[in-house]
Amino acid sequence: MPTKNIVVIGGVAAGPKTACRLKRLLPDARVTVIDQDNLISYGGCGIPYYVSGDVSDEKELRNTSFHMTRDTSFFLNAKGVEVMTKTRALAIDRKAKSVRIRNLDTDREESLPYDKLVITTGSEPFVPPISGAELDGVYTISDLHKAIDIKEQLAKGRVERAVVIGGGAIGIEMAEAFTDLWGVETSLIEFMPQLLPNILDKPFAAMLATHLREHGVNVYLNEAASTIEAGNDGRAGKVITANREIEANLVVMAVGVRPRTELAREAGLQVSKFGIVVNDRLQTSDPDIYAAGDCIETTHLVSGKKGLAPMGSLANREGRIVADNLAGIPSTFEGWIGSFMMKAFDICVGGTGLSYQAAKAEGFDADFVISAQSDRAHFFPEQSVIPLQMVFDRRNRRVLGVQGFGPMGDAVLARIDAAAGLIVKNGTIDDFSKLEMAYAPPFATALDALNATANIADNKAAGRLRTASIDDFMAWMDEQTGNPDWLVLDIRHPAETAAFTDKFGDRWLAIPYIEIRNRYREIPTDKIIIIVCDAGTRSYEVQGILDHHGWKSLVLGGGFNCIRRIGAAWWPS
Amino acid sequence: MPTKNIVVIGGVAAGPKTACRLKRLLPDARVTVIDQDNLISYGGCGIPYYVSGDVSDEKELRNTSFHMTRDTSFFLNAKGVEVMTKTRALAIDRKAKSVRIRNLDTDREESLPYDKLVITTGSEPFVPPISGAELDGVYTISDLHKAIDIKEQLAKGRVERAVVIGGGAIGIEMAEAFTDLWGVETSLIEFMPQLLPNILDKPFAAMLATHLREHGVNVYLNEAASTIEAGNDGRAGKVITANREIEANLVVMAVGVRPRTELAREAGLQVSKFGIVVNDRLQTSDPDIYAAGDCIETTHLVSGKKGLAPMGSLANREGRIVADNLAGIPSTFEGWIGSFMMKAFDICVGGTGLSYQAAKAEGFDADFVISAQSDRAHFFPEQSVIPLQMVFDRRNRRVLGVQGFGPMGDAVLARIDAAAGLIVKNGTIDDFSKLEMAYAPPFATALDALNATANIADNKAAGRLRTASIDDFMAWMDEQTGNPDWLVLDIRHPAETAAFTDKFGDRWLAIPYIEIRNRYREIPTDKIIIIVCDAGTRSYEVQGILDHHGWKSLVLGGGFNCIRRIGAAWWPS
Repeated sequence: MPTKNIVVIGGVAAGPKTACRLKRLLPDARVTVIDQDNLISYGGCGIPYYVSGDVSDEKELRNTSFHMTRDTSFFLNAKGVEVMTKTRALAIDRKAKSVRIRNLDTDREESLPYDKLVITTGSEPFVPPISGAELDGVYTISDLHKAIDIKEQLAKGRVERAVVIGGGAIGIEMAEAFTDLWGVETSLIEFMPQLLPNILDKPFAAMLATHLREHGVNVYLNEAASTIEAGNDGRAGKVITANREIEANLVVMAVGVRPRTELAREAGLQVSKFGIVVNDRLQTSDPDIYAAGDCIETTHLVSGKKGLAPMGSLANREGRIVADNLAGIPSTFEGWIGSFMMKAFDICVGGTGLSYQAAKAEGFDADFVISAQSDRAHFFPEQSVIPLQMVFDRRNRRVLGVQGFGPMGDAVLARIDAAAGLIVKNGTIDDFSKLEMAYAPPFATALDALNATANIADNKAAGRLRTASIDDFMAWMDEQTGNPDWLVLDIRHPAETAAFTDKFGDRWLAIPYIEIRNRYREIPTDKIIIIVCDAGTRSYEVQGILDHHGWKSLVLGGGFNCIRRIGAAWWPS
Repeated sequence: MPTKNIVVIGGVAAGPKTACRLKRLLPDARVTVIDQDNLISYGGCGIPYYVSGDVSDEKELRNTSFHMTRDTSFFLNAKGVEVMTKTRALAIDRKAKSVRIRNLDTDREESLPYDKLVITTGSEPFVPPISGAELDGVYTISDLHKAIDIKEQLAKGRVERAVVIGGGAIGIEMAEAFTDLWGVETSLIEFMPQLLPNILDKPFAAMLATHLREHGVNVYLNEAASTIEAGNDGRAGKVITANREIEANLVVMAVGVRPRTELAREAGLQVSKFGIVVNDRLQTSDPDIYAAGDCIETTHLVSGKKGLAPMGSLANREGRIVADNLAGIPSTFEGWIGSFMMKAFDICVGGTGLSYQAAKAEGFDADFVISAQSDRAHFFPEQSVIPLQMVFDRRNRRVLGVQGFGPMGDAVLARIDAAAGLIVKNGTIDDFSKLEMAYAPPFATALDALNATANIADNKAAGRLRTASIDDFMAWMDEQTGNPDWLVLDIRHPAETAAFTDKFGDRWLAIPYIEIRNRYREIPTDKIIIIVCDAGTRSYEVQGILDHHGWKSLVLGGGFNCIRRIGAAWWPS
């Protein structure tokens, strides 16, 4: 086999992964990576932790686990891969099979021939049309240089107030970094009515927002930044929304990314609104050109829809698959399911598959349940409740998505990762009910929280469980409108219910769980009974008893455990 | 539909679960649970944590998560289930459809008629044929009463030395309880050459044994207790093996359980050596009698073989399925895959599917790899290495099992639970490679440790990676025999290798990873090169380079990270 000459454009995640794997598979190949930056192969997802100070030196983001920095000499000596930094790809000549490149230090241009080309140009932050976005002190998180600059501002004490525009994962992580480690008064502005729109449902987003507020972040939802005004020093000084003006020495815009596809488009490759179009082998419309990472269009395996999936974890998987195919090992990337986790101060939140909102929008006959089960045996000293949500398709009981919320740690991760394996295999509620999660009291309950959530979904899918949503319940409690024929039946311990019956009088009836079988006749028959407890499981049992005797009822799914995390102005003090 | 009369024999796990679910599904049914004990519905897996003091009161093991004790009045009032405690089932009359029962307080006997019967009689500890096993102070962990008695002995300061016979999960947990919380000098005796035989492979069992020894437990493998001798007080005083005599005030025998099947057998139901034979609906050979929990024969879904799976987690799943079928909801239990987790002092170990040893014994063309990857981004402050093992079938690349070892927490759990979902769906190495584990630096690496392990398995299955096992390497280092033509190539940093080259001279060659491409010619060609690094990943890269140039080599899978955890007398101090 003649020596292959492979050129990779882009040196952050998918590019280096492709190059190194390829060189291992084809030791004779010549593999060249070009990147316009001087800093390459870094963990971009670590930027918030570098800014916060959890990671002290930017070099750690570029290091291997064995403490070597992934620079050009490392790639050459360790991996046999030539990396040309500060080198921009100007154009691809598909006929001549070469890339026109420019050295950004010398401005010298040349043509780099290739046998096979790999485009891993990544994504760039979307800059919203806000006047003042060009001011000094306004940042997007596009690369490591921006992060270094931001951290310098913080370290020099130049930042007293910061505004983050965008309530996605990066925005939230940056807001935590500013507040937690640097004591900066930080505001987070999100255009949509919730944090993490599209990937998280409202109750979980609300728990997250409450936690951020409890840790000093000013969270403004349903609000758009219209203008960034300069201060006296000419740098960013103030962010203006329809509702308020917020002083800020530092503004971070994190409202999403778009794929870098210009090079591919100009070369005549097929490019959609989501990114470079590739087949399952990650081959573009030119069979000699492959693409991977943030710049490609990807299929969501639950919805079946095309989209953009700009995740470092996927970029690494895709890079490996490109290398395999280039080396003659048939390998496919079918798509993604949207697994994610994020830390926010003392809690974490995660999910996989589709949210309920997304599933509805995609046309599924979707339904959901929320549980509030312990992460480990309730008698084990350090147990915590981890609310989980399961979204399913009523028509075929397929599980479409799972979300979780809990204390910082890996308990939620375990349930999300377990769900990912079944969701990608079209798992049903029954598969989740029976999934053999590992059990011992220090790690789980005998029936794991994820199994229990599936059992609740089973009860709901079968019509045995009927729920009131947290949203509807909150609206009814807040506004005392919407459902005039509702009556709360609070089945918790009398010590827990007293303050509620005192405050809410004729719309709050308390009968302890243990007494329902003997006292159900006390419950009015002309109301819809909203059964509430801490988690919802006892309420389900009570619903069965009321059903049997002819009462109409709904269970508050997720119970007061979730309501408490969201916070309610009406909560008796 | 006429009122159904259902009798459940056994009130610990599967029985109460069946009864409560059934009463919810069929509110008109009469559901009666009988148990010979006065304590029912307890978390038996919590016994070691009760003995240790982590759980202060045995009642906590019998409480619900909302602090009510699951006693007869709770079952009656909350669940509508009648429980008859201290009531022994003497015989089943299948023709008359009744159970002969005796009240153990009054000795009164009566016949309890049933429409449908559920047998959940559980398992009982196997008592090995050791002389002295009947002495006071010798315990099996058969029920809560034994646990209460043991804890009383400890609390009263009567136990200075304890011996645990049996290195399974319960034995290890009890040994930890004695040592850690009560400061008892504890010895653990296991007949087989490793702890957790059958479910864990040797390297992981060796890491566990080393950790136990570091925490003061005397672990004796390959050793059987032959006699328990009485002390002056007539109670257990000494345990005798072929190699030693160990003083002990307390002896716990935890060498496994056997199903309680006498009642079923005497009633003429089909019973195998593993337990009561049931179909997928958990119906016995009499269609009016179901069985669930520790007393039934179950199918291992990876091996396809019948066996006994005495796990509280399975008992709960099975109970739900029996209730569904009794209520007319078709529901099946196909079998188990052997997911487990256990805590031992500061570490945890877990697995799912088959071990390598078990897979070989079952006739699979099995192979395995061991990784030593970080549980979260290596730049994140609290990261740890979590060795994982993946066992796969060479013929079809199906993953047969996964094992993990790591610091106490849920990081290993997350990987085991994720693996469980794919293993039960016949997942291949490729499914594991692509599994979309949730990623952010505080929770995982961009390519999760489980994905990375699958990639290593892929390399091994494809013949690109060839390994030396830890067992073979240890034997060679310990005895300096077995493989005279081996030469170690240590590619770690010179600061790490100096003590090794000093000590092992001509069988230890050090060339740093980064210099291999330029210095490989220094490596002798007449030896088989054993490439060692900390995790094995760099060694794999070096193997590719040596392959390319014609050297013969093997990679030490799992690397020195695993060797250090196992401990080696030859390790330079």
